[in-house]
Amino acid sequence: MAEAVKELFPDVKLAIGPSIETGFYYDFDMPHKLTEEDLPKIEAKMKEIIKRDEKFERQEITKEKAIRQMKEAGEIYKVEILQDIQDEKVSFYKNGNFIDLCRGPHIKSTKEIKALKLLSVAGAYWRGSEKNKMLQRIYGTAFEAQKELDDHLKFLEEAERRDHRKLGKQLDLFNIFQEEAGAGLVYYYPKGAVLREVIETFLKDEHRKRGYETVIIPHIAKADLWHTSGHYEYYREFMYTMKIDEQDYVVKPMNCPGHILIFKRKMRSYRDLPIRYFELGTVYRHEKSGVLHGLLRVRGFTQDDAHIFCTHHQLKDEIIKVIDFAFDMMKVFGFEYEINLSTRPEKFVGTKENWEHATDALISALKSKGETYKIDEGAGVFYGPKIDIKLKDAIGRLWQGPTIQVDFQLPERFDLVYTGEDGKEHRPAMIHRVVLGSMERFIGALIEHYAGAFPLWLSPVQVSILPIADRHLDYANKVKEQLLAENIRAEIDDRREKIGFKIREAEMQKMPYMLIVGDKDVEAQVVSLRARSKGDLGATKLAEFISSLKEEIAGKKHK
Amino acid sequence: MAEAVKELFPDVKLAIGPSIETGFYYDFDMPHKLTEEDLPKIEAKMKEIIKRDEKFERQEITKEKAIRQMKEAGEIYKVEILQDIQDEKVSFYKNGNFIDLCRGPHIKSTKEIKALKLLSVAGAYWRGSEKNKMLQRIYGTAFEAQKELDDHLKFLEEAERRDHRKLGKQLDLFNIFQEEAGAGLVYYYPKGAVLREVIETFLKDEHRKRGYETVIIPHIAKADLWHTSGHYEYYREFMYTMKIDEQDYVVKPMNCPGHILIFKRKMRSYRDLPIRYFELGTVYRHEKSGVLHGLLRVRGFTQDDAHIFCTHHQLKDEIIKVIDFAFDMMKVFGFEYEINLSTRPEKFVGTKENWEHATDALISALKSKGETYKIDEGAGVFYGPKIDIKLKDAIGRLWQGPTIQVDFQLPERFDLVYTGEDGKEHRPAMIHRVVLGSMERFIGALIEHYAGAFPLWLSPVQVSILPIADRHLDYANKVKEQLLAENIRAEIDDRREKIGFKIREAEMQKMPYMLIVGDKDVEAQVVSLRARSKGDLGATKLAEFISSLKEEIAGKKHK
Repeated sequence: MAEAVKELFPDVKLAIGPSIETGFYYDFDMPHKLTEEDLPKIEAKMKEIIKRDEKFERQEITKEKAIRQMKEAGEIYKVEILQDIQDEKVSFYKNGNFIDLCRGPHIKSTKEIKALKLLSVAGAYWRGSEKNKMLQRIYGTAFEAQKELDDHLKFLEEAERRDHRKLGKQLDLFNIFQEEAGAGLVYYYPKGAVLREVIETFLKDEHRKRGYETVIIPHIAKADLWHTSGHYEYYREFMYTMKIDEQDYVVKPMNCPGHILIFKRKMRSYRDLPIRYFELGTVYRHEKSGVLHGLLRVRGFTQDDAHIFCTHHQLKDEIIKVIDFAFDMMKVFGFEYEINLSTRPEKFVGTKENWEHATDALISALKSKGETYKIDEGAGVFYGPKIDIKLKDAIGRLWQGPTIQVDFQLPERFDLVYTGEDGKEHRPAMIHRVVLGSMERFIGALIEHYAGAFPLWLSPVQVSILPIADRHLDYANKVKEQLLAENIRAEIDDRREKIGFKIREAEMQKMPYMLIVGDKDVEAQVVSLRARSKGDLGATKLAEFISSLKEEIAGKKHK
Repeated sequence: MAEAVKELFPDVKLAIGPSIETGFYYDFDMPHKLTEEDLPKIEAKMKEIIKRDEKFERQEITKEKAIRQMKEAGEIYKVEILQDIQDEKVSFYKNGNFIDLCRGPHIKSTKEIKALKLLSVAGAYWRGSEKNKMLQRIYGTAFEAQKELDDHLKFLEEAERRDHRKLGKQLDLFNIFQEEAGAGLVYYYPKGAVLREVIETFLKDEHRKRGYETVIIPHIAKADLWHTSGHYEYYREFMYTMKIDEQDYVVKPMNCPGHILIFKRKMRSYRDLPIRYFELGTVYRHEKSGVLHGLLRVRGFTQDDAHIFCTHHQLKDEIIKVIDFAFDMMKVFGFEYEINLSTRPEKFVGTKENWEHATDALISALKSKGETYKIDEGAGVFYGPKIDIKLKDAIGRLWQGPTIQVDFQLPERFDLVYTGEDGKEHRPAMIHRVVLGSMERFIGALIEHYAGAFPLWLSPVQVSILPIADRHLDYANKVKEQLLAENIRAEIDDRREKIGFKIREAEMQKMPYMLIVGDKDVEAQVVSLRARSKGDLGATKLAEFISSLKEEIAGKKHK
């Protein structure tokens, strides 16, 4: 690409052009202002160079000579790069009339490039610092076969179509009022709040069924709690702090200390364990503004958080139950998954026996489920091993999902005890776990997974009633009342617009069902049904439609 | 009382002794350390003085002379009080050998006191400042008839029995970990969280039915929003503030600015109005540590908050709907109520027409409901008139409850507009309203109202199953499973304790129903039922019990 650009714009100065995960880019400094329209021209030139079958030839010279040559050529950015290289010799690759600094290895000839595409143009500061000059960057990608490139481009288009930030706006679900209210803080509009409440209600039921008790704790607390937990030391920069009555307080970055206080409120016996505390707990953590991204990286988020206090003997069983729980949840939402097990790191606390015990429990739980998993040797947190489950969405992307973390450290620091069968005091183990992760990230993943076309049970609006004219409004309202009475989320599009327009709008809104209401429907006391995936389904009796809806909702079907 | 104390402890120095709402107190400085055991002795002496029929005689003398006399008598506190009096003459009342500084008026003779009771002893700093000496205070009360005193003492005992802080502990509902986690911040234990969730689920349903949409906003936000609202100026000392990315942020003390941002997200037409946003929004406000009190005065609380955006024309109808809503809620929870209407204060914003319009709407809404109300002339907030509804509990005490506040000011400050039928821009009106108030305060009131004996639908545990011996545990578990399957909250007391002990404990826990399970029950496949209010009800089939339970729960009956 750099050769093509230099042939087209000879006064260009070349900065730097690495390969990246999704392809490559190159930063240029030149008077011509690049636009998307330049890309086909550059691509054409690249293809011409490929045809020329130019061989790449490696040249090794001393750094001093290289600097001299680059100075002569006016390539000031290359000079800077060279000056930072520690080696005495550096390598260049030459093809045709083009030569560039490159460590290698390199393909043999331009002809080996079988398929390429330039993707976009962007501004980029030299060396990433806003104190330096703004350069022009071209992103591109290349593959060994046209088919692979086509697949990749289709994937990019599909990912773009599913972008939760775009769909969040289109479907009127949520917003981040960065300017007015602050970065990384999510405001749920009514439809987003319905989506979240449906998931939360489902989650609460599932936790209750599985023997969890709900607790509720405040969002601010004395910093002392995080001194005790040890987070204040390691985690300080992520915490929002303030003074109350001249004492240090924090906006809670995690729920564990609060749940621990509740556990500690009374003497515990082995007969009381396991105790499982659940909370949809909203926490606030300071992420740098540069890494914030839609719902996926935020500063405030609600975890479906639970802490299980149990005997060491109960640990394995409790982990199996959590894994089952997580798998059940993934199934309901239609995610595939990948599993990682992170084991003891070099620096760890607690005894090796405890670690082995906990790791064995995690492994044997996974094995008993017949699940395959990857072991990240030594990648556990200092206080215990953990399982990470990544959600694999409809187009194969991975998202952070459930985590199960065994912890022997906080029970120690907070001096948690229970009386064993032997009448003596013992230290309980603790499991930190989330089964969806954070509501924000999960909803972001869900939007992209379903491309906004939520299954019926999750749809903020389940049925849109479209009266053809104002004279059908009364009947439409009767239909709506009957739907609402059955706890079906229905709304009427009562705008004075043509029916074709209303249908297109409802389709844009990814409405699962539309009921079109006109003269014939009123007369026959029926509704004309359109389904999102199936188009026009003809006239149907409302009672029949309602009963099929209720079945579909109860079944939490994916389509 | 002061005379009696002086006769019993001649070396006492008298400080100050005013009458207060619930009776009177007097602060003494003396070597003898007063205890509750001294009170009967002092009371006896007081009754002796009353019998003496000592006449009270008013004496007016110059302040200078009074100071001289008090100095001679060694009454240093009286000297201090006198020095602060501005008048030239002061009055004393003398009876028998006792004389005390008193502005008057006064009863004529000690004999007029018909009934008295000394209630408690407490320490109190002279003039309320911890820099001064700690004095000894005796609280007492007196009435014109023994019957009145008896009633009052019974009331005090009843109030003590209902104290939500005591019951909160006894029923294991909540706690404030003042030392560990901070004052005024409530932690809900599992049973308290169930109580709160039952109320919240009910509230959410009721809001949905009434056309409210739920929104969800973060707990922290840029301070800018409260500069715009005007609260930053007036309300600064109540707000918890911090810096994020070098900008001012606050922990939200109220939800309105967030709801306004959501309202403003798109163009609005008169056809979209009214828009009603509801949120169980947790807010944090800095109350002085001295005024914090259990769940009633806290620093973090969750409002059942809503903001209604409507045309001025819709205002009256919307207010009627909110009043209906509030009344319905009071009925469900069995509260009587008193209504206050606060009208335009001297300093106000907006036009007089708007104020009249809003006040008329409030009044005509109350009238249409046939409700009596008290007008607090000029007691409205600067931006609009409001209705306060006070809850009257089972023993006649008033609690702050629903408020309905009309606001023309925030729509102005945030520049809210909608397009009217005339195609022009108009300013909507806004109603701020809560129907229960704060979950914390409401739950506190509820605990005292019901004295902890919650109606079945609210009870954290609805049925306690009490197996007589371990061999009945299997059957007890089967019973429990059947109850849980019907969404009835049941638990088993599986401790190895005598059945009498278990029943007493369940009664202490104010359990609505107990199922006692012994040999006969297992054999006949029945359960032996005890009801909280009715005692032993004999053997019953579980299916029949469940169906009567479900009816009682669905009816939200009070007893």
